[in-house]
Amino acid sequence: MKITTKLEKFTNALYLESGRILEPYELMYETYGELNHDKSNVVVICHALTGSHHAAGRYEGDRKAGWWDSMIGDNKPIDTTKYFVICVNVLGSPFGSTSPMSFKHQSNKRYGLEFPVITISDIVKAQRILFDRLGIHKVHAIIGGSMGGMQALCFAIEYPNFAKHVISLASTYATQPWAIAFNKIAREAITKDPAFKNGQYDPDEISQNGFNGLAIGRMSGFISYLSPKTMQRKFSRNYDEKDGLYDLFGKFQVEKYLNYNGYNFVNWFDPLSYLYITKAINIFDASRNYDSLEDSLSNIVAKLTLIAFSGDLLFLPKEMKEIEECMIRVGKKDLVRYIEIDSDYGHDAFLVETDKFAHHVTNALEDS
Amino acid sequence: MKITTKLEKFTNALYLESGRILEPYELMYETYGELNHDKSNVVVICHALTGSHHAAGRYEGDRKAGWWDSMIGDNKPIDTTKYFVICVNVLGSPFGSTSPMSFKHQSNKRYGLEFPVITISDIVKAQRILFDRLGIHKVHAIIGGSMGGMQALCFAIEYPNFAKHVISLASTYATQPWAIAFNKIAREAITKDPAFKNGQYDPDEISQNGFNGLAIGRMSGFISYLSPKTMQRKFSRNYDEKDGLYDLFGKFQVEKYLNYNGYNFVNWFDPLSYLYITKAINIFDASRNYDSLEDSLSNIVAKLTLIAFSGDLLFLPKEMKEIEECMIRVGKKDLVRYIEIDSDYGHDAFLVETDKFAHHVTNALEDS
Repeated sequence: MKITTKLEKFTNALYLESGRILEPYELMYETYGELNHDKSNVVVICHALTGSHHAAGRYEGDRKAGWWDSMIGDNKPIDTTKYFVICVNVLGSPFGSTSPMSFKHQSNKRYGLEFPVITISDIVKAQRILFDRLGIHKVHAIIGGSMGGMQALCFAIEYPNFAKHVISLASTYATQPWAIAFNKIAREAITKDPAFKNGQYDPDEISQNGFNGLAIGRMSGFISYLSPKTMQRKFSRNYDEKDGLYDLFGKFQVEKYLNYNGYNFVNWFDPLSYLYITKAINIFDASRNYDSLEDSLSNIVAKLTLIAFSGDLLFLPKEMKEIEECMIRVGKKDLVRYIEIDSDYGHDAFLVETDKFAHHVTNALEDS
Repeated sequence: MKITTKLEKFTNALYLESGRILEPYELMYETYGELNHDKSNVVVICHALTGSHHAAGRYEGDRKAGWWDSMIGDNKPIDTTKYFVICVNVLGSPFGSTSPMSFKHQSNKRYGLEFPVITISDIVKAQRILFDRLGIHKVHAIIGGSMGGMQALCFAIEYPNFAKHVISLASTYATQPWAIAFNKIAREAITKDPAFKNGQYDPDEISQNGFNGLAIGRMSGFISYLSPKTMQRKFSRNYDEKDGLYDLFGKFQVEKYLNYNGYNFVNWFDPLSYLYITKAINIFDASRNYDSLEDSLSNIVAKLTLIAFSGDLLFLPKEMKEIEECMIRVGKKDLVRYIEIDSDYGHDAFLVETDKFAHHVTNALEDS
């Protein structure tokens, strides 16, 4: 599989949903496989909150492959011998695209809190402009899970003729208060950490001294990504025998897991990016510029596949089901397919249990 | 209804489960109604994590009544014209009983992190000693929700002949990793707050300057007490129009709610108490000093009523069901009754939707 990673620079202003402007801006993206002659084999992958453009393959020296490596590759469910796959790092993310830690135009000052609020529509709009530059004006499919699913749905509504197939997994039509509440913990922990310094922190200092608020925020995220059953199976009530049960700071296995993943997160993610991307997720509501969700979904002409997971406690299956029902109400029954995967893994099933749903993705891609 | 509030002092050592000793110690408690001649009308109420001995009635000048006022009073479900109700503030709690903020014996130094870890068994043992001093050696019933339900179950196992009826609501036989994870957010946020000062903080300073870590911890608690449905109904996706949707720090209603309750919590609860009581909850496992849960529950001779709530996402109904099934397995089918209340309110249903289950409590109390 041929992998290329590129940074594309844009000097034209990006007009944002908020009324603000981003100028200039850059987008980092990665491609897998080869674009065919008539450019009809493009599959766009949209990543989630902490994901990146590195969706598949392994960089030299890396222990871990891209976040959806089990799905994307030669003869894999999203088969790169057939498809040319593109994954773009979203605006606001710390992996190369323009983010709050980028330097403002012709200055040596980082944006910090002066970075404009970005929405899922803005993220999608920027990707659309990138694809245009690459000469890709239509794609075979757009696929995404969680926040990636929001992007996929947003593409289907706002650029109806752009994709033939749209697949949204473990996502929603509008972020519900429950998900906003989990994000709130993180947003509060980040901004109240003295290391945050009103967004004027030095990234080198953070990588040296850590950033507890971001670690605590990540822990809150992890609770929403797993399910009671997975936690029960993974950790039970085991605890660190070294500390003992009666040590105030002795740790249960689940605490050790949250600690490890929370504090490790600080080494590879950025607090301001977390603030801005969770804000984009919180704002997401497919109906917000329309009279109703029905009104919004009537734009869709792509074939829409919705894959929900029964144990997802962050974006409940009924939220995905609501999209299907709404599509049926507006006479688009033939365009929509709702699939509920039986899984007690939790929200992260879309990343972890790919064998349970991969064939549905392949089938949707092969549907004419 | 006659209400009395008292502080009882104990000079004898309390031998704790951890092997440590608490000496001396004090317990604050409140009673409602009158003790009858043969002391056969006592009902013990056990409070939850942030509760107190003030379970019912209204203190002069107070806006709010005790935390279970809808349940306890003259002609109420726990009828104080019949029963003499006692509620004891648990060890470690900041409402008058000995806690980490108490001064160590004959010193002007607070315990801080030198306070010993307390378990549910210790909490129950201390109450048992208090009741003995009051000349109460048997009670009609013990009732508690959440952590109060753990105490009730613990009484039933460790002092089998003490209570005739034991009622546990919205609780469990052992705290599961999911609940430990929610506590972890709070414990991490508290200890990493610079205001914590390794437990040597000045309480006056905290009430003046606040304590973000405790506020964030409370927010984490609130997510686990509510359910997606309640949040949807209470807050929907409403946001503060004053801020607008595109303000990075603009707030959704659910965020305002968490903010208000989180930061307000700091005014009436103590960070060290939160650390110690969540530890007691985390440690709780009714089977831990036995070969199995069956082995542990075989001690029970009281009539055990288990009231679970279908929408409880903190202590899942199946955890309560497991107690029933276990009791049946050890031949105690006649002693146990499991009731599942249909509610989508979440864990807090035991505090909020008392009209849905009050008659079950009354019936259990009146059962001969």
